[in-house]
Amino acid sequence: MNYDHIFNQAIERLHAEGRYRVFIDILRNKGAYPNARCFAGHNGPKPITVWCSNDYLAMGQHPKVIEAMEQALHDVGAGSGGTRNIGGNTHYHVDLERELADLHGKDGALLFTSGYVSNDATLSTLAKILPGCVIFSDELNHASMIAGIRNSGAEKRVFRHNDVEHLEQLLAETDPALPKLIAFESVYSMEGDVAPIHAICDLAEKYNALTYIDEVHAVGMYGPRGGGITDRDEAAHRIDIIEGTLGKAFGVMGGYIAADTRIIDVIRSYAPGFIFTTSLSPVLVAGVLASVRHLKGSSVEREAQQASAAFLKASFANAGLPVMESTTHIVPLMVGDPVRAKKISDVLLAEYGVYVQPINYPTVPRGTERLRFTPGPAHTEAMMTELTAALVEIWQRLDLQLAA
Amino acid sequence: MNYDHIFNQAIERLHAEGRYRVFIDILRNKGAYPNARCFAGHNGPKPITVWCSNDYLAMGQHPKVIEAMEQALHDVGAGSGGTRNIGGNTHYHVDLERELADLHGKDGALLFTSGYVSNDATLSTLAKILPGCVIFSDELNHASMIAGIRNSGAEKRVFRHNDVEHLEQLLAETDPALPKLIAFESVYSMEGDVAPIHAICDLAEKYNALTYIDEVHAVGMYGPRGGGITDRDEAAHRIDIIEGTLGKAFGVMGGYIAADTRIIDVIRSYAPGFIFTTSLSPVLVAGVLASVRHLKGSSVEREAQQASAAFLKASFANAGLPVMESTTHIVPLMVGDPVRAKKISDVLLAEYGVYVQPINYPTVPRGTERLRFTPGPAHTEAMMTELTAALVEIWQRLDLQLAA
Ligand SMILES: Cc1ncc(COP(=O)(O)O)c(C=O)c1O
Ligand SMILES: Cc1ncc(COP(=O)(O)O)c(C=O)c1O
Repeated sequence: MNYDHIFNQAIERLHAEGRYRVFIDILRNKGAYPNARCFAGHNGPKPITVWCSNDYLAMGQHPKVIEAMEQALHDVGAGSGGTRNIGGNTHYHVDLERELADLHGKDGALLFTSGYVSNDATLSTLAKILPGCVIFSDELNHASMIAGIRNSGAEKRVFRHNDVEHLEQLLAETDPALPKLIAFESVYSMEGDVAPIHAICDLAEKYNALTYIDEVHAVGMYGPRGGGITDRDEAAHRIDIIEGTLGKAFGVMGGYIAADTRIIDVIRSYAPGFIFTTSLSPVLVAGVLASVRHLKGSSVEREAQQASAAFLKASFANAGLPVMESTTHIVPLMVGDPVRAKKISDVLLAEYGVYVQPINYPTVPRGTERLRFTPGPAHTEAMMTELTAALVEIWQRLDLQLAA
Repeated sequence: MNYDHIFNQAIERLHAEGRYRVFIDILRNKGAYPNARCFAGHNGPKPITVWCSNDYLAMGQHPKVIEAMEQALHDVGAGSGGTRNIGGNTHYHVDLERELADLHGKDGALLFTSGYVSNDATLSTLAKILPGCVIFSDELNHASMIAGIRNSGAEKRVFRHNDVEHLEQLLAETDPALPKLIAFESVYSMEGDVAPIHAICDLAEKYNALTYIDEVHAVGMYGPRGGGITDRDEAAHRIDIIEGTLGKAFGVMGGYIAADTRIIDVIRSYAPGFIFTTSLSPVLVAGVLASVRHLKGSSVEREAQQASAAFLKASFANAGLPVMESTTHIVPLMVGDPVRAKKISDVLLAEYGVYVQPINYPTVPRGTERLRFTPGPAHTEAMMTELTAALVEIWQRLDLQLAA
């Protein structure tokens, strides 16, 4: 048994496919985001503009968030020092769970160390509590949902992306006596499209299935109070479990679910991924509290972000760049090849000071490699016009197709 | 299918066994820890002393840690805004990984959002990369290691706690051609005992197995630079993968592994739990950097903590309290029943302002419920003498046995 050999082979496969990942080393400039500094090799930091952050509304630099974190840091210190059950349940945690429950019109909420963990822990535990449970999963569901479903050991039936007819077919084929759970997302973050939530809920009612929605890319972003697409579409009351992150539009870090208190109590009591881990730092929780409260009352950030996204989509389309159809704040450009996507990204960074990460397998299916832009309220029209010109120049330089 | 009924039953089982958990709602007082405030119902906060924190060295309130976090907060903002690959790789992350690699004498290190995730993600990925891998696991391994092993789908052979003969028997029975991994902890946190690391490494060499050690309760705490028991016992070079947390002795939040660069690269490239999640907030990472650097150069905190632990153990033993045998900084008192353990804890909090959480199943096996004390450098001898007297009073009040 030669372990090194096996490990080397695993790495070689990535190089051979052109998808070995090199992490870009950056520091964002608080107060001046999307400006940032990039560290490359031994050279000092170089100024860049970030175009691929999921801090969609720049809440990570919002004065209220910063101030709340600073206060918590000085009031209670850095970490929580324990699991939620053993010393790590701070008053901030209790308050934030109340705030998130209210955001989604639910009786309860539960915090996790990340959105990934909230999906993994909740889905795997739920299906174990419901013996024989069958999980119906959208084919484009996020890796963390896939992990939770697989780790549950439950039977999984995958329906075609956003395809309600296919979902109904699978539900109809399944023994009516078995517990059922439909797991899907609201905004699919690599495509920018939205699930037919009400139609899925109709099916859930017809076939007596529980519903689980990942609103990671929608919380803070949609609805009059930032409760996500279920807020905008008035569907929250029809969903059993709403899952979200605190690390994207809310600008900090962590994850959660909102649901009725019974379900919350079950997950709280049985999920190893919730129980056996140091709770979120109170500093983070304090920041999220300020962020959620602010976005409940303010739509300025959401509106500015939507305006930027609309401008950039139009700018790309007018220039003939292959912008993918997206009905949301996400602006993906299809490239279709990992080496070319990386090349474009490398040139943008080296020559234009533009940072946009190429998205490759396993984040998206092979052959659909892309660049994914997330313009925010602080990206100006001038910046977007310049970006478009840079992309056109690179497209031509690399002999890529531009639409007429 | 009545979902509510199933959920209710799951909760009822916990009440029936006396192990339904109620989280104590607290805020620690930075600068005055172990003093804290406890929120109960509608009454204002009440002062308490915390005796069960895993912020073992009170680094969560260390001025260097607080200052570093405050600086990062003002320099780069609250969250990282992305996964490590997509915009969330800050210069702090790069620096901390270098610092942790050095702490353990390894070529590389990799950060995760928690110690739980580092165990789950690394173990499950490693065993998938090594087809046919058999994992040898100590029977008292932490839930996060158990999760990683189960999620890997690999064959698992459980050896009796710290029993090298049993481990050898299982290794000898296993096909020499198969990849093998021995997974264990250095300090077992609910018992306070330590693994026979060198003896396990001898077996690993003899049977050509990889070694994986969880040093979560030892990093920062043992060894001249705080590299854990493998630092103290000069065994780090014999271990393939050392795993640790940033949320206990280092006082903040997060987790990591340290290993040679090949293994780091494999986990970095293949583990969904590493790839598909927002990276640690740079504010946390900056705090950990300060904490690790400080504890590399200072043994004052470690020595004061060990002195407190020794004093408390002796104080309990002299009073006839059932202190469990522990060779480390952890001071567990055996109770052996979940209802009684909770009762003692309730009286301590209500009447003595002492907060120590009862530890029950599934954290420890049924019938071994206990109270687990973690005195730190800031718990004074007077506080420990008072605590001992309080416990003796409660022991007598509840008609529990005291040794002669
Ligand atoms: C759809 C979706 N769900 C869950 C997650 C995980 O959330 P977090 O970053 O908070 O772990 C992500 C991305 O990171 C995501 O894109
Ligand atoms: C032995 C052990 N490993 C791992 C963990 C998880 O570490 P973290 O709290 O950073 O998730 C814990 C406790 O939380 C633990 O006790």
